[in-house]
Amino acid sequence: MGSMRKNWFHSLPNEALHAEFLQDVSKLLLKEAVFAGTQRKNPVVRFHDPDHLYDLLNLTPTEKPATHTELLKAICDTINFSVKTGHPYFINQLFSSVDPYGLAGQWVTDALNPSMYTYEVAPVFTLMEAVVLEEICQLVGFPSGDGMFCPGGSFANGTAINLARFKYFPDIKRDGLGCAPKLVMFASEDAHYSVHKMAALLGLGEQNVCSVQTDKTGRMDSLYLESQVQRIIATGAVPFMVVATAGTTVLGAFDPLPAIADVCTKYNLWFHVDAAWGGGLLFSRTHHHKLIGLDRADSVVWNPHKLLAAPQQCSMLLVRHPNIIKACHACNATYLFQKDKFYDVSIDFGDKYLQCGRRADVFKFWFMWKAKGSIGFEEHVNALMDCASYITTSLRQRPSFKLVLEPEFINVCFWYIPQSLQGLQEQPDFNEKLHKIAPRMKELMMRKGSMMISYQPLQSLPNFFRFVVQNSGVTHQDVDYFLDELDRLGADL
Amino acid sequence: MGSMRKNWFHSLPNEALHAEFLQDVSKLLLKEAVFAGTQRKNPVVRFHDPDHLYDLLNLTPTEKPATHTELLKAICDTINFSVKTGHPYFINQLFSSVDPYGLAGQWVTDALNPSMYTYEVAPVFTLMEAVVLEEICQLVGFPSGDGMFCPGGSFANGTAINLARFKYFPDIKRDGLGCAPKLVMFASEDAHYSVHKMAALLGLGEQNVCSVQTDKTGRMDSLYLESQVQRIIATGAVPFMVVATAGTTVLGAFDPLPAIADVCTKYNLWFHVDAAWGGGLLFSRTHHHKLIGLDRADSVVWNPHKLLAAPQQCSMLLVRHPNIIKACHACNATYLFQKDKFYDVSIDFGDKYLQCGRRADVFKFWFMWKAKGSIGFEEHVNALMDCASYITTSLRQRPSFKLVLEPEFINVCFWYIPQSLQGLQEQPDFNEKLHKIAPRMKELMMRKGSMMISYQPLQSLPNFFRFVVQNSGVTHQDVDYFLDELDRLGADL
Ligand SMILES: Cc1ncc(COP(=O)(O)O)c(C=O)c1O
Ligand SMILES: Cc1ncc(COP(=O)(O)O)c(C=O)c1O
Repeated sequence: MGSMRKNWFHSLPNEALHAEFLQDVSKLLLKEAVFAGTQRKNPVVRFHDPDHLYDLLNLTPTEKPATHTELLKAICDTINFSVKTGHPYFINQLFSSVDPYGLAGQWVTDALNPSMYTYEVAPVFTLMEAVVLEEICQLVGFPSGDGMFCPGGSFANGTAINLARFKYFPDIKRDGLGCAPKLVMFASEDAHYSVHKMAALLGLGEQNVCSVQTDKTGRMDSLYLESQVQRIIATGAVPFMVVATAGTTVLGAFDPLPAIADVCTKYNLWFHVDAAWGGGLLFSRTHHHKLIGLDRADSVVWNPHKLLAAPQQCSMLLVRHPNIIKACHACNATYLFQKDKFYDVSIDFGDKYLQCGRRADVFKFWFMWKAKGSIGFEEHVNALMDCASYITTSLRQRPSFKLVLEPEFINVCFWYIPQSLQGLQEQPDFNEKLHKIAPRMKELMMRKGSMMISYQPLQSLPNFFRFVVQNSGVTHQDVDYFLDELDRLGADL
Repeated sequence: MGSMRKNWFHSLPNEALHAEFLQDVSKLLLKEAVFAGTQRKNPVVRFHDPDHLYDLLNLTPTEKPATHTELLKAICDTINFSVKTGHPYFINQLFSSVDPYGLAGQWVTDALNPSMYTYEVAPVFTLMEAVVLEEICQLVGFPSGDGMFCPGGSFANGTAINLARFKYFPDIKRDGLGCAPKLVMFASEDAHYSVHKMAALLGLGEQNVCSVQTDKTGRMDSLYLESQVQRIIATGAVPFMVVATAGTTVLGAFDPLPAIADVCTKYNLWFHVDAAWGGGLLFSRTHHHKLIGLDRADSVVWNPHKLLAAPQQCSMLLVRHPNIIKACHACNATYLFQKDKFYDVSIDFGDKYLQCGRRADVFKFWFMWKAKGSIGFEEHVNALMDCASYITTSLRQRPSFKLVLEPEFINVCFWYIPQSLQGLQEQPDFNEKLHKIAPRMKELMMRKGSMMISYQPLQSLPNFFRFVVQNSGVTHQDVDYFLDELDRLGADL
């Protein structure tokens, strides 16, 4: 007992002190967060305004330790007031679900607390990463490719830009951009904003991301792309890269990969495909044709935490060229990557990475893959595509719903047109009024906790809703519920 | 049963299908990974060479799903062959421990699977992040500062470099480095390698990180720093930033912050302190004096996953200036950061970040803080410092151990000099022979699984060991064990 008291602050687990508490935590989580939290009869969120929630919670750190009872209470509060992203009525972002096997995978990783730099420290996860990246390279169509995990698709896109720059101007790594010509890259106007953020971070400048027009289905116009490449060359600047998107964030459009690949070949540009969102389709024999041309890319970003419902966060960068990642990033720190080790150090991946310490994001994905098999991922993706097509059909049959465009993917974008606005499309302030509907309905659904669906404007289009179902547990009845609930919320507007 | 079979691949938890399995997983983890895995009588690792381990495991993904029994077996294997980073005899890196409250915190985060961009999606974690960052800013000495979590100290350092550049040359964000003069930054020769990696990523170039000499205690020589700043100015290039390190990776040295701050003030340079490793000392009233001058910094990186034993990964960047993070990173994506929301959107932090989707790394740290109180962190840090001083005293009493230098922090660096080399210091090939001792002993300890301690060369010094204890459960007896075991392993060399 004396020694237990002495140990209270230790970072070493002690069965007598912690076993019961940790069991209680896992039971509480399973009961309240995982199962009750994802049941249809329970709310998606118990919303409170920030100031009010702040008052309800007790967040300020204290000098003194809390008791286990107080800690369990804190966990209860956290669960209670958190958004249930695993709830079937949460379709608010390009991620959702608390996948049971993904969750188990995270728990395993946490209990082992590895960091990924050397085989020495993470033998199992290092081998797993090699196997998974190799399999994914095969799927993407890079038979002798290479890959890495990244802390999200944004940094993965940034890493791809850096690789592209390194391919054509390797000296920039050592000497900086001072000695390089003005470099320009291309992305569609609907590309993810991370492309601009990363261009700024890399010292290229947001303005040197040339925005390429999309057609009315949201796809990059490859003829316009070519004309822009020529225009930039004529100014004396140097085009070096095109970012195509396979599954755009808002509309879910797929840029025409083969046509863009042709432009890249013709002008010797790095061809990057941001398939953060659409990559998961590769598992579906029915739908992978949307990614035709992907194998012509130099690099691909793919986030299993989006379409495949892996837990946050799981993001991969795949590269056609076998040695460039290492060449671009290596810095040979001798304190960590000793060459005089007793095993074959070519397995020590760390120096290939921009990160030093790194979570083993591979395990949850590997574990889900093992649990479901490739067939399970295929069924998952097919179920989502089926759900999207059921949504589309159902929307059409209801007078208050109007599609923004014919969906080609999971994203189903639509306006809710309340009765008070129906038939008034021709009025000059119609769009202005319509623009205010979605935010108002969003407030209503959040305060009620009945569901969460995102809305946004796009270019000149007024606010519209975007259905994005990545939870394969969402049924046709759920879809009916979503639409009925929108009708209920919009009844008085 | 029919519906259960239909559901097998769903990303939605189903009590009938998954409750028992998830309970089994958590029991297995507690028993084997958390408790058995951290017991002194059990090995730190069951080492196998990569090829052999690959054959022992069954890593290749399959078409078909695995059964729950097979999945539990896979978890057992993963635990069995993984390094137990929470074991008291694992002191191989600047992180260790499976802190019981940190682990509980991770499990909570995983069960809720949030992503951090808006209050809408992560209300509790968003408020928590605001509270924790504000508290930490106070601790660091930035009363009206700002902060953010980063995916590791490496990216945190990179983000700081980007902020520094933005402060002096805000147009680079939009226009790129083309329009800027040649920019140069300074870091000591013992600074973490991420400074170079990030300088390359940001387009500044590795070569434009000017390496500043250290004195024989491993601290940056501030007179030499000033002379280098003057030299660079004389070449026509523009110095913009100094990176000081508070707790260097290998030697654990603290650069003289006040003297460096003076140089930065004089030449109008951004003063960044990489306290990834040393930051935790702020919690100790006995030891925080090592960080005097930290409050004069413009930015500070601090990794609670190192000294404070928070789980991988937990890393913060703190900045003196209240608005610069947002100004430097924002890009106003309307699909995610709508301004017409129904709550006060100033709480939506996402646009301040370089990441889009982001794990809630705050919770585990907040939870540990709640569990232990500031006093618990203080006791933890004091216990580690006490342990380091016990190691130092004990080393001195043993003929086979020789300190590399007088430790001023947790890092205790020493050579093991086997009997066969004792007294031969004057021989010309002594260093060459000594250089081979540590790798050989490392192999022996890993194959035996008895402990893990890292070694490395530094500049012209031959390979030496580095003790770094961040697990406050490590006792004086454990230290005796480490030293005895080194004597056993080195007996025949
Ligand atoms: C002083 C210092 N700074 C930064 C880092 C990088 O931190 P991370 O591993 O989280 O990227 C390290 C890692 O050991 C370090 O020792
Ligand atoms: C097309 C696309 N690319 C990249 C990203 C960024 O991924 P992450 O959120 O992992 O940074 C997103 C995020 O939604 C996206 O939709």
